[in-house]
Amino acid sequence: MVVEGARLAHARFPEAQFVFYGVESRIKPILDRLPRLAQRSQIHHTDALITNEDKPSVALRQGRQSSMRLAIDAVRDGQAAGVVSAGNTGALMAIAKFVLRTVPGIDRPAIASYLPTLRGESVMLDLGANVDCDADILVQFAVMGEVFARTVLGVSKPTIGLLNVGIEELKGNDQVKQAAQMLRRTNLPIQFHGFIEGDDIAEGTVDVVVTDGFSGNIALKTAEGTVKLVIGYLREALKNSARGKLGYLIAKPALDKMRERIDPRRYNGAILVGLNGIVVKSHGGTDALGFANAIGVAIDMSVHGFVARIKDELERLKLDPQSDTQAAVV
Amino acid sequence: MVVEGARLAHARFPEAQFVFYGVESRIKPILDRLPRLAQRSQIHHTDALITNEDKPSVALRQGRQSSMRLAIDAVRDGQAAGVVSAGNTGALMAIAKFVLRTVPGIDRPAIASYLPTLRGESVMLDLGANVDCDADILVQFAVMGEVFARTVLGVSKPTIGLLNVGIEELKGNDQVKQAAQMLRRTNLPIQFHGFIEGDDIAEGTVDVVVTDGFSGNIALKTAEGTVKLVIGYLREALKNSARGKLGYLIAKPALDKMRERIDPRRYNGAILVGLNGIVVKSHGGTDALGFANAIGVAIDMSVHGFVARIKDELERLKLDPQSDTQAAVV
Repeated sequence: MVVEGARLAHARFPEAQFVFYGVESRIKPILDRLPRLAQRSQIHHTDALITNEDKPSVALRQGRQSSMRLAIDAVRDGQAAGVVSAGNTGALMAIAKFVLRTVPGIDRPAIASYLPTLRGESVMLDLGANVDCDADILVQFAVMGEVFARTVLGVSKPTIGLLNVGIEELKGNDQVKQAAQMLRRTNLPIQFHGFIEGDDIAEGTVDVVVTDGFSGNIALKTAEGTVKLVIGYLREALKNSARGKLGYLIAKPALDKMRERIDPRRYNGAILVGLNGIVVKSHGGTDALGFANAIGVAIDMSVHGFVARIKDELERLKLDPQSDTQAAVV
Repeated sequence: MVVEGARLAHARFPEAQFVFYGVESRIKPILDRLPRLAQRSQIHHTDALITNEDKPSVALRQGRQSSMRLAIDAVRDGQAAGVVSAGNTGALMAIAKFVLRTVPGIDRPAIASYLPTLRGESVMLDLGANVDCDADILVQFAVMGEVFARTVLGVSKPTIGLLNVGIEELKGNDQVKQAAQMLRRTNLPIQFHGFIEGDDIAEGTVDVVVTDGFSGNIALKTAEGTVKLVIGYLREALKNSARGKLGYLIAKPALDKMRERIDPRRYNGAILVGLNGIVVKSHGGTDALGFANAIGVAIDMSVHGFVARIKDELERLKLDPQSDTQAAVV
């Protein structure tokens, strides 16, 4: 899946070069059948690997020769512009944080991803890296999300929404109420929309959805499950009558286009933001097309100089004597 | 909308009787045009009302003659079997808790609702009443959800899942980890499935989804938003080509059936569980059909003696000398 994903990514980004970390005897036979990709690829052999069952702390201590660790080391050493992994998320986060460190002003990296909305695309973070987040951390996520939307999505003045159980000021837990206060008070050059609710995510009410990793992960997966539910109901409805079947056959090209638009593979590739390096997490259960998209995300971020821009932005905020949120973002 | 909803509910439940709390001069003209409903209806006039902008604490103190308060008083006094309101959720919860009190063993009422899944229907709670929940509260929700699924949904041995960011034991925040430990250890006669993730909600992995009100509200509204997104994409895809349009016309009856199945009005009517009385919250933005469904939920709960069964069940658990969770559920 990984090598085949690289082949698809290579077709889209002919300039890209690939280093595969893993068991050479498993990778090489596949690469040998793909001479064009092979020309632009190296294999860095290692037997050691981190499984999905490994605890992040154990992976960090004992996985020094693992494919995941070596690939992240290569990013630190400038041998690679970024790393893409479909492995253990917790281990990837722990190792990346340890090896690459967070950029100044950021305490904790977050997992961010694009999502489809009725108005286009939004960015949402955190999607599961930090189950508990205080207000300071949420404000840092807001700043990173803003830079992300501006840099990678190309939105000139991205709007930021804080995910909550209601839009009124008095709604929510202490963390979101305090974060909203900080974001409202601030004269950061960001557009804080205010609180949003779960349905605003798909609505596309804001460009950047900020939330803690607990609610963010649940919201993301709930959305994925709901897409499957609606598609499942649609399929059942269409196949349960002669008219449904006929209509399906006729409308098939349109329906296929719709399915493609909400295909989770299209949105595969979550970014670990806030690190001194580009780290992209692919869904473990994806296929080559999904993995190619995750590689595409890493390339996009590299081309846009995402890490440097996050750093510049945070540096700028830190130096701004007008800023109320120094304590928060520095 | 309310009177028209009662008319629809009356058609389904001819034995039901209705008392409308509110401004008589607004209600009576509508009722006068519906003689069959009027025969089974009374109007309890009051000018005072609680608006959506009122803080729950203010509504509680100052709203003693409000339509919401008087209707809940009627439930306490046995003059009504249950109350249905499309008003201010926070105020409804605060007044209902104050007037009706929670049943013994329950510290905080929760908001519960049915949800459509790929396998049928599930119950989810809390949907927003309690933004912060410790492990004890989550265990109480599990017990109430279990009784709900057994009593109202008619599932003989409902399975319970705790919503989390992963299914492994080490995943999640302290509250869910501790609640899972309590539910695993317990010899309560309930089927604890373990942790579930957001996509398990629509999948129908369990009969009862237990979560805190913050994540639960976000998950519910994210699901609602995602349904709109997929339907929106579907509509766009079908109308953007001649084949799509034709296929739509042919498959329309099937597509209508599908839309009906995921129509949020069908699932309108969230139940405030854990109270000494039946209180159902209708979505504020629903129509007569949605409101009729909310009335149907209240009637169902009354017919099934839900409140008495919750009490019996909690009493039984309390008396069970084998139970480990006495501290939790008592």
